[in-house]
Amino acid sequence: MLFSTGKLIVIEGLEGAGKSTAIKTVIELLEKRHIKTLTTREPGGTVIGEILRDLIKNPEYRDILDDRSELLLLYTARIQLLEEVIKPSLRQGIWVIADRFELSTMAYQGGGRGLDQEVINQLSSFALRGFKPDLTLYLDIGPEEGMTRVKSRGEIDRIEQQSIDFFHRVHESYIRHVEMSSNTVTIDARHSLQEVQQAIRHTMNEFIEQQQ
Amino acid sequence: MLFSTGKLIVIEGLEGAGKSTAIKTVIELLEKRHIKTLTTREPGGTVIGEILRDLIKNPEYRDILDDRSELLLLYTARIQLLEEVIKPSLRQGIWVIADRFELSTMAYQGGGRGLDQEVINQLSSFALRGFKPDLTLYLDIGPEEGMTRVKSRGEIDRIEQQSIDFFHRVHESYIRHVEMSSNTVTIDARHSLQEVQQAIRHTMNEFIEQQQ
Repeated sequence: MLFSTGKLIVIEGLEGAGKSTAIKTVIELLEKRHIKTLTTREPGGTVIGEILRDLIKNPEYRDILDDRSELLLLYTARIQLLEEVIKPSLRQGIWVIADRFELSTMAYQGGGRGLDQEVINQLSSFALRGFKPDLTLYLDIGPEEGMTRVKSRGEIDRIEQQSIDFFHRVHESYIRHVEMSSNTVTIDARHSLQEVQQAIRHTMNEFIEQQQ
Repeated sequence: MLFSTGKLIVIEGLEGAGKSTAIKTVIELLEKRHIKTLTTREPGGTVIGEILRDLIKNPEYRDILDDRSELLLLYTARIQLLEEVIKPSLRQGIWVIADRFELSTMAYQGGGRGLDQEVINQLSSFALRGFKPDLTLYLDIGPEEGMTRVKSRGEIDRIEQQSIDFFHRVHESYIRHVEMSSNTVTIDARHSLQEVQQAIRHTMNEFIEQQQ
C-alpha cells in the first residue's frame, strides 16, 4: 500500500479518556500495514515548543502566566510543530499521530478558561492557514470518570489541578466543537478497553480504505 | 507635585535612534521633580518575558522561529509585562518608562515582516484590552543613519541583522502608525544630542503641566 503523502491523525479527549492507549492502538494498526508513523504531543515536540511547554506546565510559572499568554504560547508551539515537524513528515509519507491539536484549544482555552472564541478562531486561521487534520478521534468520557482515572495514575499537573467545573466546561465545549468539525469521529471511551480499541481499529480501517 | 497614579511613557524608534539616551533624559527630568520611575524593556522585564526574549533574540533559535511565532511571543511578553509590572507600578504612582511597546510591533512585525495588520490589531485588542500609554515619544531617524550608529556601537542581534529594505519598511510603518496614534509626539532624532534632549525635555515638561 502506497500513499503519496502521510496523513495527520489527531487523538483528542479529556484527561483520563485513554489517549495514550488510543495512540498505541493506531500505531500498531498502521505498522502492521507497513506505514511509517510519528507521534507528536502538544504543547511541545520542537526545541521552542518544549521550552514553551515548560512555561505552561511548570508549577513555578503557574501563578504568573496569564490565561491569554497561555493561549498565545499554545499557538506558538503549534505553529512550530506544524512547520518543523508535521508538514515535513507528511511530505515524506509519514503518518503523524498527534496527541492533541486544535480541538484541545477550543475546549480548554475557549470552554474551560472562557477566552473569547472569536479571538481563538482568528488565531487558529493565522496559525494553521487552512491546514486540517485528515482524521480526529475524539475519545469521549465524562469529567468525573476521567478525573478518577487520572488520580489513580497519581499524575497531576497545572492543567489537571483545575476544578471539576472547569472540566465540565471543557467537556461541553469538546462536544460542541466535535459536532462542527469535519473528519472527526467520536469514540465512546466509557466502554471497556477492548471495546474502545475495537472501535478505534474499525474507524482507522475504514479511513484507510477511503484513502485508496 | 502629586499624581494619584503613575504615567506610562513609551520611547519608540528604529535602532540607532537614540532610545537609551532619551530614556535617561526622561528619567533625569522626572527625578528632579521627585517622581518615582521604573524602566522596562520589550520583550522582557518579567521571568516569563525574559525567557521569551531569549527565544526571539538568541541566534540559536533564529532560523527556526516562524515570523508568526515571533509575533505571538512578543504579545505574550507584553501581556506579562503589562499585568505583572506596568499596571501595578502605575497604581503605586510610579511612572513607567517603556523601551518599546505597541508601535514597535506595528512597525517591525507589521511593516518589516509583512504580517497581516488586521491580525496584529486583533492581538493588540486582546492583549491590551483598551490600555494605552499616556505619552509616546517617537524618535525619528532614517534607516541608513540608524544602522550607521548601530554598527559604530559594534552591537548586532537577530533583529538588527535584517536587510536595509526591512528597515525601510519598518520606518514607513512607524511614520504611518505615529500619524494614527493618540498621545504620540515625533522627535527629530537627526539633530544634535543637545537639540534632541532639549526637544524631549520640552515635550515632557508640557506633558507634566497638562496633568495638573
